[in-house]
Amino acid sequence: MANTDSLNVRVFSLNCWGIRYLSKHTPQRYAMIGDMLCKEEHDIVFLQEVWSEKDYLSLKKKLACSHPHSHHFKSGVIGSGLAIFSKHRIHETFLYRYSLNGYPYMAQHGDWFGGKAVGMAVLKLGNLTANVYVTHLHAEYCRDKDSYLPHRVVQAWELQQFVRHTSAGADVVILGGDLNMHPQDLGSRLLMSYTALRDSYVESAKFDGCEDGMTLIADNPFIGKKELGPFEKGIRIDYILFKGSSKTDIYCDFMSTTKGSVPDHPFPYSDHEALTAGLRLETQTPTETDSDRQRTSKKRDSAAGKVAELVDIVTEARTEVKVGLHCAERMRYTAARTGVMGLALLFLELAIAAVPWLALGAEQPFPRTSFYLLAALCFAILLTTTLLYLFYTMELKSLQGAEDQMRLAVGSLQEKLRGFPLAQPHNAQRRPPENHEPSTFTPEE
Amino acid sequence: MANTDSLNVRVFSLNCWGIRYLSKHTPQRYAMIGDMLCKEEHDIVFLQEVWSEKDYLSLKKKLACSHPHSHHFKSGVIGSGLAIFSKHRIHETFLYRYSLNGYPYMAQHGDWFGGKAVGMAVLKLGNLTANVYVTHLHAEYCRDKDSYLPHRVVQAWELQQFVRHTSAGADVVILGGDLNMHPQDLGSRLLMSYTALRDSYVESAKFDGCEDGMTLIADNPFIGKKELGPFEKGIRIDYILFKGSSKTDIYCDFMSTTKGSVPDHPFPYSDHEALTAGLRLETQTPTETDSDRQRTSKKRDSAAGKVAELVDIVTEARTEVKVGLHCAERMRYTAARTGVMGLALLFLELAIAAVPWLALGAEQPFPRTSFYLLAALCFAILLTTTLLYLFYTMELKSLQGAEDQMRLAVGSLQEKLRGFPLAQPHNAQRRPPENHEPSTFTPEE
Repeated sequence: MANTDSLNVRVFSLNCWGIRYLSKHTPQRYAMIGDMLCKEEHDIVFLQEVWSEKDYLSLKKKLACSHPHSHHFKSGVIGSGLAIFSKHRIHETFLYRYSLNGYPYMAQHGDWFGGKAVGMAVLKLGNLTANVYVTHLHAEYCRDKDSYLPHRVVQAWELQQFVRHTSAGADVVILGGDLNMHPQDLGSRLLMSYTALRDSYVESAKFDGCEDGMTLIADNPFIGKKELGPFEKGIRIDYILFKGSSKTDIYCDFMSTTKGSVPDHPFPYSDHEALTAGLRLETQTPTETDSDRQRTSKKRDSAAGKVAELVDIVTEARTEVKVGLHCAERMRYTAARTGVMGLALLFLELAIAAVPWLALGAEQPFPRTSFYLLAALCFAILLTTTLLYLFYTMELKSLQGAEDQMRLAVGSLQEKLRGFPLAQPHNAQRRPPENHEPSTFTPEE
Repeated sequence: MANTDSLNVRVFSLNCWGIRYLSKHTPQRYAMIGDMLCKEEHDIVFLQEVWSEKDYLSLKKKLACSHPHSHHFKSGVIGSGLAIFSKHRIHETFLYRYSLNGYPYMAQHGDWFGGKAVGMAVLKLGNLTANVYVTHLHAEYCRDKDSYLPHRVVQAWELQQFVRHTSAGADVVILGGDLNMHPQDLGSRLLMSYTALRDSYVESAKFDGCEDGMTLIADNPFIGKKELGPFEKGIRIDYILFKGSSKTDIYCDFMSTTKGSVPDHPFPYSDHEALTAGLRLETQTPTETDSDRQRTSKKRDSAAGKVAELVDIVTEARTEVKVGLHCAERMRYTAARTGVMGLALLFLELAIAAVPWLALGAEQPFPRTSFYLLAALCFAILLTTTLLYLFYTMELKSLQGAEDQMRLAVGSLQEKLRGFPLAQPHNAQRRPPENHEPSTFTPEE
């Protein structure tokens, strides 16, 4: 008989909206967040948008008793904004920076400067090794015409790769963060299907929070109506995801979100709602190897039918990346053409200045002021287009890289499909349907 | 009784020196490399510096029969240069781009443009899952005054993290590539000690090749004497490393390198020597779980005494990163100061032009030509220093991130040390000795 150990773990996630001098009431909100975390004593706290090192350090000081272990992940120009606070010792951390993350010249959006990434920490929860991940994906500024969609899809692709490949040795996997994707978005489906991570909102036995688990809601005073677009009431873009292993089963006993306000305070913690999930870890200690192998094998069998769906999702993602490739190629071509025009203008100017008859009978020679101004303009054009050309080339390389990886993955999955007698390999080639349900299996486990 | 299956795997690694139009005899050398690979039919081929997509594609075409599976990893402006060819199906690939990789303005060194990275491919060797890695670290241009050392140490740190965290589910791990580090260098020790990877040159039962396993030798006609500095005969910077798992034992039966020339050809394959290793994989199928647990446990006990050494190595690496931090801070300060001076000059100029008495009684007003030239100079200074400031800030973030991770790792290792009755925790704080032997154990496994 198996001897089952049970362990309860409370997990918290919040996008803190901590842009110094730009976000509203930042110091007061950090004070509120600190007080609440200190009181609530969650086991693991995932924070996003903790952009300032000072804010992180003041939180760390405040939470020294409740959460003695913490890590602030550094990346990009202003940091990744990601932080983990934990009651349990953090043994190791590792950071994966997404290869694509918007454009530096889109300074008003600022995502590029944030160096978006996924941070991993290895904890011990009792005897279990837990790999916990915190992440924040590129924001969606306009859903109808989302020029960042290929970047976000590639981020979701890299996120699932990172989680899957680094979690093989873990007993428990927990991921929290602001994915900036709705539950049915391509990136979400890609992440959930490939990693077999389960959504605590969907899985929770008990839920207390906003309708449909929304985390960006109209009732939050920091949210303008424009931001939500056609989703009048709000959207769900923050998540706590989890999965167990052959050794450990994991269940979500309860889940809650804040509802746009905090009792006894004039404003909420952030423009996002905070998430709390109560997870229960059940470990079967003695007869683990044999029984669990059987269980894993059963799981694999039941998963077989869904490999085709994963092929569809990856194919859909590949299409999106190809759109991005096309776009980046066009932008690079424009940069190159503008650069060549700048160079031609410079040569023309030099020629006019050097060879008087080229001035087409103008009475006075090339005016010096105009000459220097024009030359400066040409140099500015050349410099800017060179930098843009380099940037777009790097973007292209990353997109091509992701596309290559996806093609390879589809090939491998299709081969796997051929191994299942009941699966329908011909499905693999058709365009995916519009509405997928997220599936929770791991074809690679 | 355990039933042992044996599998032989031949692995090849070569830095191809494939810079189009700059490297010597590139097309001829690629033809030679292709012919040789086609004939030799190694199981796994790791190539570095395959900078051109065209060269990769022509190799792929040539090796279609001998190595039907391949992947070219894309990164940076001109690619990562990394490629894998395999006789066995590649199921998945994943790329980790190093967070630090030299400076874009050091165009003559070019490393930054190469987007150095470590590429991973998941293969099936018989019933075994093999994670194979190909990498190329930042070059060392001047050993005495190596300004890239902190970057290379951080790359080695990230490489060991990536290999360790992604290989937990693998039965076999093989890493090949140009590490640009001597066997006793800090980065090599960090990599080998932390990952427990074993060096095929050291482990090989039979060796045929250059003295001391050197891979960059004076006898190679493409190598200038200057390049080798004080190491007259050559250096060893290319490696094939490997490790098994609780399920699989791995041995190196033979290892060979080329010796600066190729019979019947006027020049060698590359400026680096090519490496070939014959690995033997032994799998114990039935009683694997119990016996291997015992073995792992024994290994862990014997490893205990070496955790202190690992603490030393990580502490040494941390010191190096701190030197890099200091340097980057100074560079950023210089960029900021120069930027402020440019801005002050611009304001002064505008003031002189606007307020005539500031021209200090000069007879003619501010000459227009000088005015525009000076303004253009000021703008150029401002733009350059802004870009440099951003770049150094990102460098600082990455260095700080690595330093944070190292501090955490040292803390965790020291805690582990306290758990070993025979270990000497006081050793952990002292400065490491100059000459370490590489150790091969995994404290985290």
